Amino acid sequence: MKQTTAGLLLVVSGPAGVGKGTVDSALMARHPEIKMSVSATTRAPRPGEIDGTHYYFKSLDEFRTMIERDEFLEYMHVFGMNYYGTPKSYVLEQLALGHHVILEIDVQGARKVKQAFPSAVLVFIAPPSMETLKNRLIGRGTETSEAIEIRTQTAYRELEALPEYDYVVVNDSVDAAVDEMESIIRAELCSTAHNKELIENLLGGKNVTC
Amino acid sequence: MKQTTAGLLLVVSGPAGVGKGTVDSALMARHPEIKMSVSATTRAPRPGEIDGTHYYFKSLDEFRTMIERDEFLEYMHVFGMNYYGTPKSYVLEQLALGHHVILEIDVQGARKVKQAFPSAVLVFIAPPSMETLKNRLIGRGTETSEAIEIRTQTAYRELEALPEYDYVVVNDSVDAAVDEMESIIRAELCSTAHNKELIENLLGGKNVTC
Repeated sequence: MKQTTAGLLLVVSGPAGVGKGTVDSALMARHPEIKMSVSATTRAPRPGEIDGTHYYFKSLDEFRTMIERDEFLEYMHVFGMNYYGTPKSYVLEQLALGHHVILEIDVQGARKVKQAFPSAVLVFIAPPSMETLKNRLIGRGTETSEAIEIRTQTAYRELEALPEYDYVVVNDSVDAAVDEMESIIRAELCSTAHNKELIENLLGGKNVTC
Repeated sequence: MKQTTAGLLLVVSGPAGVGKGTVDSALMARHPEIKMSVSATTRAPRPGEIDGTHYYFKSLDEFRTMIERDEFLEYMHVFGMNYYGTPKSYVLEQLALGHHVILEIDVQGARKVKQAFPSAVLVFIAPPSMETLKNRLIGRGTETSEAIEIRTQTAYRELEALPEYDYVVVNDSVDAAVDEMESIIRAELCSTAHNKELIENLLGGKNVTC
């Protein structure tokens, strides 16, 4: 892909079962310059999970200190549950290196990131239909019908936020979805907003507002 | 490319000598579903020019009637010169067929189209540098140094409008520029604004505003 001075921040959301993890992994396999953001959490590591790779594992005190120091792009806390958040440091470091960073977060997190970071590109991975999504959840065979019903209802609520996103990628085939993600990145790298420096150079050093 | 119910209107501008015609032709050679808009003009046909292919050749009266009937997306008239305009009918017909339509027009025309047709995608083809553009014009060997100076000054004025465009494609290599145009089209087909119908279907028929 085109070399630029700064990378893109891609926020990827989508309902459970839509396959966003599969699409993101396939995209990163094609493009090593795309990195997945590592979240911080107060939950205990599960067997095999590595600190700094799967999560940054933090104590409650450490997490709270990070909040006080404004070290999160966004974080989430439901009373009585563990904290989850996106540390700014990793994201900013990678962007400065010219890497693109994917944040796989929910609709509420996406909104917060867009506020804090208006140049973030918001991509929603959607199922071809709600029917397909439900069938995929049933096909997994790991959840009760009640759990599937709850997930489907949650999916509807998430889909209502879709118009707030910049792009919608329908995950019908993983390859086609990855092609579309690739095109979105290439196009965003051509957006005038992302090329202020180039435009200023062409205009002989004038400042521009895109 | 992805099938959608409606095509995209692509406005392509760029200074003389930047190679926008070459890029657009190469793009259309790869994608027969992309059509070039045919302009109307009051100038006389040159040998070999076919009515309805190169231009719609109109008498002054016919052209003025079309203006009165609001049949142009945009038109241009400099006192004492011929009229040039983009008839709406061809563009709307092609878009309805699901074809993408390219309008190769100048900065002022692009502004008018964006007002009349806010979903138009504005692409500016830029040279790698002003130096390169000047050298290309000199390399053609068809123009006087005075004419080249005028074209270069015009190019600077056009480049000042660049921040009003959605995308900038640097024509360093034609193949790379065509790849970028392709990505822009694919990405725009994934934009939430272009997929209201799909989103409404996912939400079970609710109206959405993207």
